[in-house]
Amino acid sequence: MTIAIIGGTGPQGQGLALRFARAGVEVVLGGRDGVRAAAIAEELQAQLPSDAAKIRGLDNEGATAAAEEMVILAVPFSAHNATLEALKPALAGKILVDIVVPLAEGDPKKVAMPPEGSATEAAQALLGDEIPVIGALHNVSAVTLKALDQSINCDILVCGNSLEARKKVIELVRKLGVEAYNAGDAQSARCIEAITPILIRLNISKAVPFSHAGIRICPPDH
Amino acid sequence: MTIAIIGGTGPQGQGLALRFARAGVEVVLGGRDGVRAAAIAEELQAQLPSDAAKIRGLDNEGATAAAEEMVILAVPFSAHNATLEALKPALAGKILVDIVVPLAEGDPKKVAMPPEGSATEAAQALLGDEIPVIGALHNVSAVTLKALDQSINCDILVCGNSLEARKKVIELVRKLGVEAYNAGDAQSARCIEAITPILIRLNISKAVPFSHAGIRICPPDH
Repeated sequence: MTIAIIGGTGPQGQGLALRFARAGVEVVLGGRDGVRAAAIAEELQAQLPSDAAKIRGLDNEGATAAAEEMVILAVPFSAHNATLEALKPALAGKILVDIVVPLAEGDPKKVAMPPEGSATEAAQALLGDEIPVIGALHNVSAVTLKALDQSINCDILVCGNSLEARKKVIELVRKLGVEAYNAGDAQSARCIEAITPILIRLNISKAVPFSHAGIRICPPDH
Repeated sequence: MTIAIIGGTGPQGQGLALRFARAGVEVVLGGRDGVRAAAIAEELQAQLPSDAAKIRGLDNEGATAAAEEMVILAVPFSAHNATLEALKPALAGKILVDIVVPLAEGDPKKVAMPPEGSATEAAQALLGDEIPVIGALHNVSAVTLKALDQSINCDILVCGNSLEARKKVIELVRKLGVEAYNAGDAQSARCIEAITPILIRLNISKAVPFSHAGIRICPPDH
């Protein structure tokens, strides 16, 4: 399996590339500058054991075209819509996995949701119903992703209007050794994306004795 | 300390009354019918050891007046605004703790948020800035609350525009033996309230091997 990570040269994208490649999933990192993406891909590959899957780097269009089916979008929210406009033709027949959180400018402890309600819904409106958009992986700390000696302290809530695509993304995400849950249609992204600034607030807070918090779904205590 | 629970004759209200009284907090259950509220209060008291604090029952107005400072609102969303309109005079000088989730009619796996963005924000708009509104306790299962042999498998995310009131509610909630976190201003309720239908979806789902799920904030794994 080969996936693309658009905006894959940022911290979240790099961490996901490391984790997916280690789990045997080939990754094509997409960047605005394909040469830089290729250099970062090489650096990441060097951090992995020799039996890990390959990480390559290309420009965003090339990476999208190289993906078998799943294209993860990991750009800052300010670049969210413009990136999708540019990639729309290359996304035909693929699934967009939107991990973008619309953090408020100047205050990462708050969201500033787009008029559609969430980044996932904005992406779905922009790409049209033919290209399924799935929101996932919003709440995992980039620092945790890059710390390969740690397991991921966060369950993944997966949402989007296509149930079939949700199931495929849940299967993909579970390769990272995390639990992933079907959290319903795209509207649930209004909640799921907004969990991230609450976690950021806790990470910053002196009253909370740890950083890089995650959330987990818990069964009843007995 | 004496708190009121408005709509306290419902499952969530009853569960909270049991837990708070067991923790030493006097509770006045408010119901539309004060006689029925008093009868339910008596039933609840009988389930508790003799050293528990008292649970009384009154009509909603009487219960609000009897609260020292904290008034918990636990009515169905359909009664949310009308209840607050009626209680507004009695709420002067108190803190409203809004635990109401605007579940979509006919589909508890979704929210249908009011125009203000969340129940907490609607309450704050309705009551005016003089009466602080704090959102909390949205995500705890009523079944879990009533199962007194179980601890509560859910951290409590507390939000609202008054930091001072948030701190007081965090202190109150911690009496239940749960962790409570400062989740920011009232806008965070758009996220926190919407976690409940996601948990309800997981509880119903055959793919999830447990019901009465909670969420917890997790430090990094090591």
